[in-house]
Order: sequence, then structure tokens, then C-alpha cells
Amino acid sequence: MIVVLKHGVPQEKKEQLIAWLQNLGLRIHVSDGEFQTVLGLIGDTSQVDMDLVASLEIVSAVKRVSEPFKCCNRKFHPEDMVVDVAGVKIGGGNFVMIAGPCSVENEDQILTVAKAVKAAGAQMLRGGAFKPRTSPYDFPGLKAPGLELLKLARKETGLPFVTEIMNIQDLPLFEDVDMLQVGARNMQNFDLLRELGKINKPILLKRGLANTLKELLMSAEYIMASGNEQVVLCERGIRTFSDYTRNTLDISAVPMLHELTHLPVLVDPSHSTGIARLVPSMSLAGAACGADGLIIEVHNDPIHALCDGAQSLRPEEYAELARKVRAVREAIA
Amino acid sequence: MIVVLKHGVPQEKKEQLIAWLQNLGLRIHVSDGEFQTVLGLIGDTSQVDMDLVASLEIVSAVKRVSEPFKCCNRKFHPEDMVVDVAGVKIGGGNFVMIAGPCSVENEDQILTVAKAVKAAGAQMLRGGAFKPRTSPYDFPGLKAPGLELLKLARKETGLPFVTEIMNIQDLPLFEDVDMLQVGARNMQNFDLLRELGKINKPILLKRGLANTLKELLMSAEYIMASGNEQVVLCERGIRTFSDYTRNTLDISAVPMLHELTHLPVLVDPSHSTGIARLVPSMSLAGAACGADGLIIEVHNDPIHALCDGAQSLRPEEYAELARKVRAVREAIA
Amino acid sequence: MIVVLKHGVPQEKKEQLIAWLQNLGLRIHVSDGEFQTVLGLIGDTSQVDMDLVASLEIVSAVKRVSEPFKCCNRKFHPEDMVVDVAGVKIGGGNFVMIAGPCSVENEDQILTVAKAVKAAGAQMLRGGAFKPRTSPYDFPGLKAPGLELLKLARKETGLPFVTEIMNIQDLPLFEDVDMLQVGARNMQNFDLLRELGKINKPILLKRGLANTLKELLMSAEYIMASGNEQVVLCERGIRTFSDYTRNTLDISAVPMLHELTHLPVLVDPSHSTGIARLVPSMSLAGAACGADGLIIEVHNDPIHALCDGAQSLRPEEYAELARKVRAVREAIA
Amino acid sequence: MIVVLKHGVPQEKKEQLIAWLQNLGLRIHVSDGEFQTVLGLIGDTSQVDMDLVASLEIVSAVKRVSEPFKCCNRKFHPEDMVVDVAGVKIGGGNFVMIAGPCSVENEDQILTVAKAVKAAGAQMLRGGAFKPRTSPYDFPGLKAPGLELLKLARKETGLPFVTEIMNIQDLPLFEDVDMLQVGARNMQNFDLLRELGKINKPILLKRGLANTLKELLMSAEYIMASGNEQVVLCERGIRTFSDYTRNTLDISAVPMLHELTHLPVLVDPSHSTGIARLVPSMSLAGAACGADGLIIEVHNDPIHALCDGAQSLRPEEYAELARKVRAVREAIA
Repeated sequence: MIVVLKHGVPQEKKEQLIAWLQNLGLRIHVSDGEFQTVLGLIGDTSQVDMDLVASLEIVSAVKRVSEPFKCCNRKFHPEDMVVDVAGVKIGGGNFVMIAGPCSVENEDQILTVAKAVKAAGAQMLRGGAFKPRTSPYDFPGLKAPGLELLKLARKETGLPFVTEIMNIQDLPLFEDVDMLQVGARNMQNFDLLRELGKINKPILLKRGLANTLKELLMSAEYIMASGNEQVVLCERGIRTFSDYTRNTLDISAVPMLHELTHLPVLVDPSHSTGIARLVPSMSLAGAACGADGLIIEVHNDPIHALCDGAQSLRPEEYAELARKVRAVREAIA
Repeated sequence: MIVVLKHGVPQEKKEQLIAWLQNLGLRIHVSDGEFQTVLGLIGDTSQVDMDLVASLEIVSAVKRVSEPFKCCNRKFHPEDMVVDVAGVKIGGGNFVMIAGPCSVENEDQILTVAKAVKAAGAQMLRGGAFKPRTSPYDFPGLKAPGLELLKLARKETGLPFVTEIMNIQDLPLFEDVDMLQVGARNMQNFDLLRELGKINKPILLKRGLANTLKELLMSAEYIMASGNEQVVLCERGIRTFSDYTRNTLDISAVPMLHELTHLPVLVDPSHSTGIARLVPSMSLAGAACGADGLIIEVHNDPIHALCDGAQSLRPEEYAELARKVRAVREAIA
Repeated sequence: MIVVLKHGVPQEKKEQLIAWLQNLGLRIHVSDGEFQTVLGLIGDTSQVDMDLVASLEIVSAVKRVSEPFKCCNRKFHPEDMVVDVAGVKIGGGNFVMIAGPCSVENEDQILTVAKAVKAAGAQMLRGGAFKPRTSPYDFPGLKAPGLELLKLARKETGLPFVTEIMNIQDLPLFEDVDMLQVGARNMQNFDLLRELGKINKPILLKRGLANTLKELLMSAEYIMASGNEQVVLCERGIRTFSDYTRNTLDISAVPMLHELTHLPVLVDPSHSTGIARLVPSMSLAGAACGADGLIIEVHNDPIHALCDGAQSLRPEEYAELARKVRAVREAIA
Repeated sequence: MIVVLKHGVPQEKKEQLIAWLQNLGLRIHVSDGEFQTVLGLIGDTSQVDMDLVASLEIVSAVKRVSEPFKCCNRKFHPEDMVVDVAGVKIGGGNFVMIAGPCSVENEDQILTVAKAVKAAGAQMLRGGAFKPRTSPYDFPGLKAPGLELLKLARKETGLPFVTEIMNIQDLPLFEDVDMLQVGARNMQNFDLLRELGKINKPILLKRGLANTLKELLMSAEYIMASGNEQVVLCERGIRTFSDYTRNTLDISAVPMLHELTHLPVLVDPSHSTGIARLVPSMSLAGAACGADGLIIEVHNDPIHALCDGAQSLRPEEYAELARKVRAVREAIA
């Protein structure tokens, strides 16, 4: 950490600050420049409150030069992490295609979609049983019975599935779920993250609507620091001024996250655009830029879907897209 | 709701859509223009999935013309809501000054600050016992013992207090709390909102970092639709590209919310800027533009505060600010 | 255009508004709903000031249902536009690779880079002679002599070139330039756009840092409405809260623009990220999602580049990237 | 400037970099930490390309610790700048009320409004003769005749006026103008800024829609470094995800700019919200937080205004607002 002092700071105040920092167990290197003095803090600076130091009258700026995340930091884990979901590998060169409806609606729907996406080459099923909805008047998901339908679809197709958990209380219901998703709105539900760190199941952690990559990694850190290292990240669009799509897919997050962390990174082209017509091109972009997989909404009857029909592909559209994704993957291999 | 059809849509497809909409219990007015046909949907359109209709091939655009929120809609409640927190009134001309430390740290700290802010004219105390922190390695608050210290401070000073709840499971601990705060990161923790709608206590609902005013109101709607109408809103800064302050105080949200809803609206100048030096000017701006109160961080020893010290005022700074706030309130009366 | 009146508007006021609108040459269809009256405006509504109508006391909302752009609207030009730059075709299936240094620095540099990118398969050269710089103390480009060096490079390699124009006064200097670029900061320099509409040369119009797709199209409209239809659009990153990259590449703008307009759309992976390491993956994403070309910064000696060295590829990196781009193009064909 | 090297950098590469930096005339202080080496660069670092250094393989991060702006930096000019516009003082405790129509439309309009705002206490007139419009089909202003009408209004009322310049070529027309405005879209039209630095007239520089405070100051620096120090800054709203107002007034920019620079800072509540109903509350917020003045749109007949009628106050509304602004100014004195 670097602390820049203001020009003309009294020697006494400077020494007080240095003493206080040394007291935190740090060694301090002092550089005197023409216009300012710079303190280099050496040691474990994760305990130092940057904002607090920055607020001191004699301080002009504070800069953290090492990342505050450890468990998910590629510096300490140069090899790609490979996460195993009931036999399906994600990361380290293993590309995963996950597909399924936004919400589980009924047996016929989930079985039809599951069989269709399997036929198209998907290795995992997705489907919401507990749904976060902006309005209290919207369909909140089938809840527990929805989970049962996902298990039935798994039994019929052999596809493991991922589904969203919204609350710690619901955790006992998720015992036989293959992968638990933390949705964008819960990315900083820290108590939930901590609990998910105590179970032995892979977690799909979606980036929040307005969260930086560092915040995403700190949320992964919550899970990993509690003991569960099986975390897969997912870019699903951020909120910007741009108003033609529901969100803005931050595609550069994929290679940037690959630099910062060894965790796998997926792209969700459905939620990031909110428009089914854009899903194929955004999927191909995701595959081309090195994502470790795609999670895509597919519905056999989008026009009657209870939620998010507007962003779902039909099975035949998905099958065609899956072929192109494979071709792009081969092209960049 | 308005549905605009594309130019040259086949009559048959148009009739199918109209029949489907009528099936949802709506009446349809058709306007044929030179370049498009417009359908006006009359009746309860809250059930219609806008995105789904927009995704139909024959549809060019869909516009909702009535707000999806009801309980908190000023149209149906023209009078200002007055929320009563253990005798302290907020809204309808009642201006509230809430102050206290970011986190409760110990008995001495909370009592000192509580007495100081009371002496300066604050009517309510704030203080965090359960703290959402970006990093798993940061201080998470004193938790239950912190709540006890707040009750002690209330006993000593007579000030009711507001404190944040992060989880449904913690609810039993909050029985003797005067007002429960939902933090920005939990604004769309819908299960938590729904539970808070079932209790009989005032709720302070903070706007999320990247949430629109409509989303804030929909979250208030979750609480109110479940039975609890005692909701106070709080603007606490949004995330933008601007990088000099921690967040950007969206000051125009105050008068805009006053148009849209009858609920009281507070301003939090501490979290919106993250810089103690800016808190006085932002507080005065909030008071001048018609906010129903201010919630401000005050610490007797900011330099040693365990969290957010950089944005806390010292008691004497708060006292001076409180005097100016009163003067501004009188000036605009 | 749709005008929604408030509930309970007096009949007289309603009739006044209708009369005023009819006076503008419009036909009005009235739909009376339970909670509001909706006016459908039929005819040429491009003259109507939406904000003004929205501000009327009796009006609850105004929605424009047809786009205000005409010349660049795909509705009226369903076929892809193909822009010809000295024999190099862009759009309608013709993919263009443009490459070169941020700034032209000297003869050796521009010739070396031009030959290298040509060898790698680039069809056009880029290079700045007039450079917009945030600081008055930074290198502003070689100006006129820079243009001469670009012509020399063209003569040596046969590559036509694109270079930025910042001011109407400089226009005479650009007579022998193949394609003129309007930079992001000048996207709404309307007088400049209008002048470029009067010349007979292809224009590369970059999206502004915080401009919507509609605004980008309105700026293209300025050029086209003045008579010059040879416009190529370029997505080069937008400003968001995300802080790991210089800007955020809005990759979904590519397919969205293809829906809205028949003009070609390029991607600039260099300026959108500001980080050379991310340029290959973002280029592949651009190619995969259907962009009509890529404009990439290449420098033979990035470490000594006078500007933007951090985002430039070395020639050998570019050559490898160009091969992969071609492979991706074939994969999605 | 601080350069942080990666862990385990070869000694030889480190020495090469240090030699290169010393070559630029800098002295280098080296701090060796446990996880990284930090170089402190002492001397004139304004020539160093941060992004370039950051892109070097051995470099982990680069931080600038001194601001790149000098002429407008409060560090070097601790006293408030007072700008004099034909006798009207702005800054250093002098609060200015500027008002007038968005566009000058005709003699009757501008004289009526000028007299009305003078009667209400305004000290300066505003009015657009050259108007930047998003659409080529919108009213572009009266141009030169508009300037004549402004001079007439000045003659009748004695109010000096400010009006926008869009192009260097128009400069001769502005000889008898009291203050020239650079609009938000031209904040980074660097050639224009440089020319305005060569004249001897006060400049009103508006913040761009998506520009940081640093960029605003760098643009002021362009004008001042060319010789003209009479610059007044103006916060007029930034572009964010928030969709209820046209822009988001970044009210905290006012006190933050006051820290960074000695230049006066105005607030434009009309453009920042785009909604006349919100102008009074935002004006009071601006006055309360210490702005040096307000520039407000006033129209005698907003409903027929040729542009921006939706955000204009009527003269009687302005008069009432002006009274409240004075009361707030007294309250915070």
C-alpha cells in the first residue's frame, strides 16, 4: 500500500502516522519527493482501512497495490481451476453448454426442454424453481415442487442441473441439487455466501448488475474462505446508460477475469441482453473470447413462458446455435 | 398498455394477438396509423409480460402507461404518509435528524455518540450491529451484543434507533428495535422484504446502488403488499462512472420520489459520498430540496473507527451542521 | 406517437390539446381506458417536441413509436449498405481488417507498420495525424506532415487509409485521404458532421463514450441527410462504472445496430479496452458476433509509442490474431 | 508517480526500466517490499505515459499521485478566482443568477424574458443562438440574428449575457458577447478550447455528459494554458442508468470541484433534470451546497418554446424561486 502525504506536512505529524502504521505490524519505506512524501507500506496491509487513512488531513492519496483477494487469486493459483459438476467438467479447457427454461413450469415443459437441449449437445440443464422478481405481483417460481421436476428431468436425461437459491432457510431443500446458483441480486448477500462456503457443492456465482470485477471476486472469496473452492463465475450483463438491451454484456470481463483468477468464467447471453434475437451472436462472442461455457435460456413455447419468454430460444434455434458455438471453439483452438 | 404493431402485419396474425389479449380479460382499442397499428390495452395489465409481447414478430414496441406499483403510489394516496417511530414522526412536514456511528463498537463509544448527537438535536440514533462488508476479512459488526448496546443507548438518551437487518433468521433478535433498515445490497432481497411486510415496525428502505426509482418503489411495494405500510425510503448514492466520490448522490431522486409516492424520503450524505468533508454540503442540499430527513454518520473518534471512519463527522462538526440544516429548513418553509 | 392523458382530465383541456395537435397536421385517434385516455398521433410526428407535450399538466406520458432517423433506417433500406473505400468494400458480407499505429510518428514507423499489417492481411491502414488528447500537455499528432506520411505509406503498400479529422478548417488538408474518421469526442460535433455530409468520401463514425445507439444513428443521419451516404459506424467502448478496462466494449451494439440500420458496423477492440492483452479476445468476439470489420492498433515498437502504446499489438501478434479472425469468420459463415 | 513492479522481476529488467525513467529526467526512489518493489518517481512526471508503463510485463500497477492540471489547480492558487463578466462578479463569495430562454426566438420573446428575469433579480441573461441538436431535423437556433437580439436585450436591461459557441469559425461573430459558453458536447473539442484560450473574454465551460471532474479540469486547463484564465465551470448533469430524469445532477461535484480548483462552479438545474417541476428543488440544493451561481432556463411561454420547453420555468415561477434561493444563501452564510 502506498500513502502519499501532502506537501509541507509537519515532521511530527508524519512521524505519528508512521508510528501508528508500524504499530499495525507494517514496515514503512519513506520516499521524499519534490512535491510530496510517499510511504510504502510493507507487510500484511489487508487490515488497513484505506478510506480512513485517506481521510487524514496530512494524507493526499492512498493506493492499494496488492489485491485484497487471496483464495481466488491466480497469482497464488496459476493453474486453471476445473470444477466438476456430477461428472461434467468446467474450466481448464473444458467448455460447458448449460441450457433450459427460465422457470420450471410443469413436468411436460421441463422434460421436453431437457430432452431437446440434450439432443442439441448441452451437458447441463438449468431451470428456476425459486425466482427473484422485481414485482411482488409476478410469478415467484414453483419452489420445492419445481426442484422435484428438475430431478425428474435429470433422471430422464442424465443431465445434472443448476438452479438458484435465494435464502439460507431453503438450503435443506437443495441437498440433491447438482450446482447451486447465486443470482445477480444476491451476489452481495454475504450471509448466504458464507453458508454456501460450508457445503460441498459447486456454486455458480453471477456478477451483480453494478458490481466491479473486484467485488465479484471478493464474493467468490466469501465462499472459498469458508471452505468451498468449487466456484464458477458468470458474466450476465451490467447496468449502464445504454437502453436498447436490458443490460450491457461486459464481454471484456471474460479475459480480464481469466487474468485475475483461476476460476472458470461463463457467459449468460440471455439475461445480459434480454432479447432472444441477440442471444446467438452474443453466445458466439462469448465462445470466441475464451469463456468456459454458456448458460442459455431455452423454452419449447416461449410465447407462453411464465417469465422471461422474450429472451428464450426455441429448441431448434438452440440446436443451430450449439453447432456454431462448436465451430467457433474449434476455430480458436 | 400500448402495443405497436409493425407495418404490414397480416390481418390474421393481428386478430390472433387481439384474441389472446382479450383472453387475459382486457379490452382492446385499435388505432390504425399510416405506418403502424396501435393497440390500447384497457383493464388490469399488470399480468401482461411486456417483454414477451415485445418479442413477438409482429410487434414493434410495447409501452406500459400505468405504473405497476399500487400501495406506494401517490395517485391512490395523495396525502403524505407520516411514519411514526416510537413517537418520532417522519414525513408530511416532519423532518427527522438521524445520526450515529457506522458500527456499534462498544458501550463507551455508542453512549458518547448518542449523547452528543442528542445534544446537537438529533431525534433518532443509527448504528450498525450486523454489517454487510465487501470482504470476508473485514469487521462484520458486533451482532446481537451490538443490538443490546443500542438499547442501552436508547435507555440513556431516550432516542429511538434504526439498525440494519441482513437476514430473515435474525428477525427474532430485532423484536425490541424501533426501526429496521434494509441496506442497499438487500434492496432486492425479496424474501426478506416479504417477511418485513408481516411485522408491525417501521422500515427504512435504502435504494440499491444501481436501482431505478421504479425498482425502489417495487421493493417498497413488496413490504406494503404484505401488510406493513410504515416504509421510509432513503437515497444513498448510485453507482456511476464518476470516480471522485464513492457513489453519486442522485439528489433529484428526492423531489421525483415525492411526486411518485406518498412515502417519506431521507437522504444519506455519508454513504453517498464516502467523504466526511462533503457531508455538510450534501446534507444542506438534501434539506434544501425537500427531503424528509437526514441520516448521518457521526463518530467520536473517526480515526479509530472500525469501519467507514472516512465518512464520519465528529460530534462538534455534526452539531454545527445541524444548526445550518435547521436554518435552511426555515429558509425554504 | 402516443400521448397518455391523466385520469380525470377535463374534457375542455383534452379538446384543446387535440386541436393543437391537429393543427400540426396530425390525425388523432382517441382511446378511452379505465384509468387513462390515450391519444394516437398519426402522420409526421417528427416535428412534435415530446418533452414539451410530456410537460403539460394533463399529460401523464408520451411515447414515440417510430424512430426519428430515416436515411440510416433499415426499415426503409432493407439491403445492407456496402461502402467502398478506394476499392476495399465494407459491409454486406465484406469484412474489413484495418490496422496501424495510434499516431503517425515518422516515416520509418509508418512504413514498417504498414508493410507488416499488409503482410498479415490487413486491407486498410489507420493512423492518427490530428490527435484529440485530454491534456493540453500531451502530443497532439504530427498534423499535416502526418497526412503526407500516410499517403507515402499508401503509395508503398497500396493500402487505402483512414485518419481522424477534428475540425472543419482542416478539411482542405484531407482531400487526398481515403476515409475520414469522426472520433468519439466529436460524434456530436454537429457542424462538422454536416460539412462531412457535403463531401464525397466515406466516413468512419465512432460512437461517443456515453451515447446511445439512437444518438449514434442521429449523428449518421446528420451526414446522410446532407448528402453523403457512405457512412460506416464503429463501436469503440462506452463509459460505465466498470474500472478494470478503460471503457466497456458494448458488444451487443453490433447485432442491435444491424437490426436498426443498413450501415456497416466495425469494432475497435483497442480503444474499447485500452489493454493490448485483451485486444485478441475482443477482436475474436467482434468477428464472431457479426461485425463488418475490425480496426486495431498495431505498433512496431509499442514501448516507445508516443501515445496509446499500452493498447497496441506488435506486428507478429497482429498477424497471429488475423489468422484466428479469419478462422472464426469461416466458422460462422 | 508510483510504479509497482511484479514479484520476482529479474534485476536486469528492473535496472533497464529505472535507467529509462532516469533518462526522462526523473529521480527514482526504490522501495523493496515483501511482495513487490515500488518505484517512486520524483520530478516532472507529466511527460510519462502511465498506460504505457502499466503495459510493461514487469509492471503490476502505476499510480499518479499528483494531478496533471496546473493552471486550474487550487494547490497552486489557494484563493478563490473571481471572474468578472461586464461588471458582474462570479466566485469568491459572489453568487450569480443567470436566466433566460433555451433559444432566442424573436425580439418580443427575448425582451420579455430579459425584463422579467431582471425584475426577479437575475444579474445575467442566457439564451442560445447556435443550438446543438441531436437531430438534423430540429431547430438549430437563429444563429447571427439571435446574437443581435441578445445584444438588444442587453441594451434594454443592462444585463450582460452568455451564449454558446459551437465552432471556431463563428468566433468573429462573438466579438461583442459578454461570456462564451462551451456546451457539454464540446467540452472535449480541444481545438475550440485552445482558440478560446487566446481571447480575452470569460468562458463558461460545461461538464460533458460522461466526463469526470479531472477531464473537466483538463479542459479548463486547455483554455488557461493558452492564456485565458477567466473560466467558470458548470455542473449540468451526467449520464447514468437512472431513467426518470434526462440526466443525473451530480451535486457533489460542486464541493469536490471547490476542493480541486479555485475556479467558480455553477449549477444548471434545467439541463440536469430536463423537467421544469424539479428545477426549483435542484436550484435550492445547488445554492445550499455552495455553488457560485445558477443558470436557469426561463420562458414566457414554455408551451410554445421551440426547444426545451419542458424544462423552462415561467417568469413568475422564477421570481418565487429567486426569493427562496436568496433565503437559502442567507441561511448558510
